[in-house]
Amino acid sequence: MDNRYDIAIIGSGPAGISAAINAKIRNKKIILFGSKDLSAKLIKAPKINNYLGFYNVTGEELKNQFQRHMDSMGIEIVNERINNVYAMGDYFTLMVNEKMYEATTVILATGVEYTKPLSGEEKFLGRGVGYCATCDAPLYKGKIVTIVGYNKEAEEDANYVSELAAKVYYVPMYKGEYNLRSEIQILQDKPVEIQGDNFVSKLILKENEVDTDGVFVLKDSVPPAQLVPGLEIEEGHIKVDRLMKTNIPGCFAAGDCIGKPYQYIKAAGEGQIAALSAVSYLDS
Amino acid sequence: MDNRYDIAIIGSGPAGISAAINAKIRNKKIILFGSKDLSAKLIKAPKINNYLGFYNVTGEELKNQFQRHMDSMGIEIVNERINNVYAMGDYFTLMVNEKMYEATTVILATGVEYTKPLSGEEKFLGRGVGYCATCDAPLYKGKIVTIVGYNKEAEEDANYVSELAAKVYYVPMYKGEYNLRSEIQILQDKPVEIQGDNFVSKLILKENEVDTDGVFVLKDSVPPAQLVPGLEIEEGHIKVDRLMKTNIPGCFAAGDCIGKPYQYIKAAGEGQIAALSAVSYLDS
Repeated sequence: MDNRYDIAIIGSGPAGISAAINAKIRNKKIILFGSKDLSAKLIKAPKINNYLGFYNVTGEELKNQFQRHMDSMGIEIVNERINNVYAMGDYFTLMVNEKMYEATTVILATGVEYTKPLSGEEKFLGRGVGYCATCDAPLYKGKIVTIVGYNKEAEEDANYVSELAAKVYYVPMYKGEYNLRSEIQILQDKPVEIQGDNFVSKLILKENEVDTDGVFVLKDSVPPAQLVPGLEIEEGHIKVDRLMKTNIPGCFAAGDCIGKPYQYIKAAGEGQIAALSAVSYLDS
Repeated sequence: MDNRYDIAIIGSGPAGISAAINAKIRNKKIILFGSKDLSAKLIKAPKINNYLGFYNVTGEELKNQFQRHMDSMGIEIVNERINNVYAMGDYFTLMVNEKMYEATTVILATGVEYTKPLSGEEKFLGRGVGYCATCDAPLYKGKIVTIVGYNKEAEEDANYVSELAAKVYYVPMYKGEYNLRSEIQILQDKPVEIQGDNFVSKLILKENEVDTDGVFVLKDSVPPAQLVPGLEIEEGHIKVDRLMKTNIPGCFAAGDCIGKPYQYIKAAGEGQIAALSAVSYLDS
């Protein structure tokens, strides 16, 4: 298939970018999914001394250096959030809402979320709790949906859902202006617990509570086990071997998502290994 | 003990330096053994594109960048070749010919030798073949010794041995001027095979053969299994887990010596992990 990529890389932190430059050097057809800021964590770092080759730089400076490296090699970031990755045998399908991508191999470099799941979030996962609002929107036609949004991209999802749902609550977990359709009700409040019986029926917030049929928690990345069905997880991280192979053939992982220490050059080194492992998988 | 280091790092390639800067940031008392060129392999690299943050640099430029990073942090390289590391229980003793160092933990970042062992080298190891000429020199008093030297430091060892041995042959594996005592006989030839019965008796070279009681092969680094008695090796590399722990408590390893791919940022990432693992070992 002409549109099939050799390597799809999910995540644009040091692990993902390092994977991208290494795969590109090996002449592979790559696609890199991420955000224009590369890494929300990196750009906030006030001072970095432990990335060999750069002393006393800010996260922003290191990010700019990474961006120049990518620019020099003609690597661009596709600013889309992958919701699901399905292993199809000899290739993978990556879902972005209505869109689909295909790749022979996948490198997961999705980082870690420092925020804990809400009380009840894991319990009701798949029974009213979801991580892809646009995927599941048809299920909520005429119903009440609450979206807990951790970034501006979540607003688009909320707008889309509001075209189908009877009512949409939006709980922004960040500050700023919100581009939301007028019928969406914004709750400036802190979500505390998802409640229900067999299925979600209520979201408890610090100051309020709302009746709701569904709760979508939209963070920068989808938890790996939700992202790739069947992926083996060990103590909260994707399980890999020293060559960055996961339990799924053709699927590799690198960076914070595979475990501590959560550090930039550790992630970059692993991204390189993952890329070279993907290359030898493709060539074999 | 006042002279005991927290962390002794053996090797000044990207893995060793990255370990050093990370350990120093964590306020550990470190000693870094290596060479002024940092890495013989790195300085010869004509172009490097795959170390995230640096595009289209020479090995020399990257090495200078690493040197500046070390200089900024006051990290110096001790230009000595460790011959043996002994686990003493709660600390390690590192031997440099007549000198000794002590450290609570050790990080091995010795790289890999690309040169194959000589035919017969492994067979006669400990029975006439050795990797530390000055250590074993007393055994060869009045005997014939051949030194296969891969670098200029080997000349000092040859000079030392020649004070005790009846005869010393020196086979230089590099070009240049040789600072050798006049009684040492230089063989400008390629060693092919070490022969003997129970013990070494002969070295066969391409053009010559010499009777000899001992053959010392002096490369940039001592093979890990010889360096650290009891160290577990797997398929030619030091066996480590994902946290860079070897089978010996307090002994960690990183970089090319733990396995492929042989790449700079992979090594730097592992050096970081090894340092942080050593730090948590020290703090526990």
